[in-house]
Amino acid sequence: MTGEGVVADETARERLVSAAISAFADKGFHGTTTRDIATMAGLSPAGVYVYYASKEELLFSISEEGHRGVVAAMRAASARAQDPVGKLVSIVRAFALWHAERHTRARIANYELAALTPEHQTLINGIRRQITSELEEVVRAGQLDGSFDVADVRMTTGSLLSLGIDITRWYLDSGHITPEQVADHHVHLALRIVGARPRARPPASGPRVPGSARSPEVDAPRVEDLA
Amino acid sequence: MTGEGVVADETARERLVSAAISAFADKGFHGTTTRDIATMAGLSPAGVYVYYASKEELLFSISEEGHRGVVAAMRAASARAQDPVGKLVSIVRAFALWHAERHTRARIANYELAALTPEHQTLINGIRRQITSELEEVVRAGQLDGSFDVADVRMTTGSLLSLGIDITRWYLDSGHITPEQVADHHVHLALRIVGARPRARPPASGPRVPGSARSPEVDAPRVEDLA
Repeated sequence: MTGEGVVADETARERLVSAAISAFADKGFHGTTTRDIATMAGLSPAGVYVYYASKEELLFSISEEGHRGVVAAMRAASARAQDPVGKLVSIVRAFALWHAERHTRARIANYELAALTPEHQTLINGIRRQITSELEEVVRAGQLDGSFDVADVRMTTGSLLSLGIDITRWYLDSGHITPEQVADHHVHLALRIVGARPRARPPASGPRVPGSARSPEVDAPRVEDLA
Repeated sequence: MTGEGVVADETARERLVSAAISAFADKGFHGTTTRDIATMAGLSPAGVYVYYASKEELLFSISEEGHRGVVAAMRAASARAQDPVGKLVSIVRAFALWHAERHTRARIANYELAALTPEHQTLINGIRRQITSELEEVVRAGQLDGSFDVADVRMTTGSLLSLGIDITRWYLDSGHITPEQVADHHVHLALRIVGARPRARPPASGPRVPGSARSPEVDAPRVEDLA
């Protein structure tokens, strides 16, 4: 197969995924037929099976890619910061941006779990536990080092994830709120939810290095603003 | 028709509603047929049409009853308290309890809106605006009288509602968390989210009237716990 052949393959595959996302979002997984998806993608129903063994395989593919993407985005966000406050801000921002920017496919990934086969549910639930762990570790670390004041680490982590996931229910591309505005708001709420303690301000007489160290993620909004 | 006849009517209607909730929760609105619902309710498909003109009418009935119930529960909760802090606590508690105790039917009411006819969507969206207003008024009142420290009343109100609605996605009857525990947690988060200011403690030398005035809704958790 030539390079072009591979590109053509990828394009048909991409068209199928886009069509499936659109159909599942519109009619739900159970209300969508393979024929619906094929028609939207400009293929015959048999053409779908060249790429996916079943409608459920298509859903699983969308769900798995989405869930793995969230884990990768959270880990990258966590690595960009050092301390629990910085990591919380960075992770919550990444999680909110992910769900606002990809709200349709993320909605399907979150609300059609019951339509997956038991084997696929087990696999996706494993990735979901990684998502929870990424955030829970940071909340627990902040509780342990005194940065946060959290009564129930698990329920608090769950609520932070709830806010992000629920974006996919209400977010509209036609609305007036940008993904960045949603993310800023969620960072602000997250710092309050964990009871982030105000940090001591750096001494005014200390050395100032313009444009150095502090990342925008940690700066906006600053924890001091919560005092 | 005798009294018994009326009761029999109500029972068939209730069986239809229960069957529809179960089927919609399992396969989604579009993946459910009128025949599925009829079979589960022990009726013929034609029997369904005695009570509901269409599958969509059944969904609308479930959705309308649920949404009107939420408004009534929020208004009753609000009336049980006097000040913004008390009203916030009472409303958030009622909202969380509602969504945990009725998580399956509330999930359908929240996630199948797009399956309603345009006329029914308009009607339900009107009730949803009442839900938002009930909470938004309290958040705004607390901001105005200095009880709360809220940067964006609308987004903050939306996030408080998000936490409650998202209960219907994750809550399991087989889980280890009671609706009351979820509600306690949400009240705790809500007070943090709005930046409720600690109230002055009553003077220790003042008169104490055991068992008087303060309602459990306002007491658990106390705003003082947030300081």
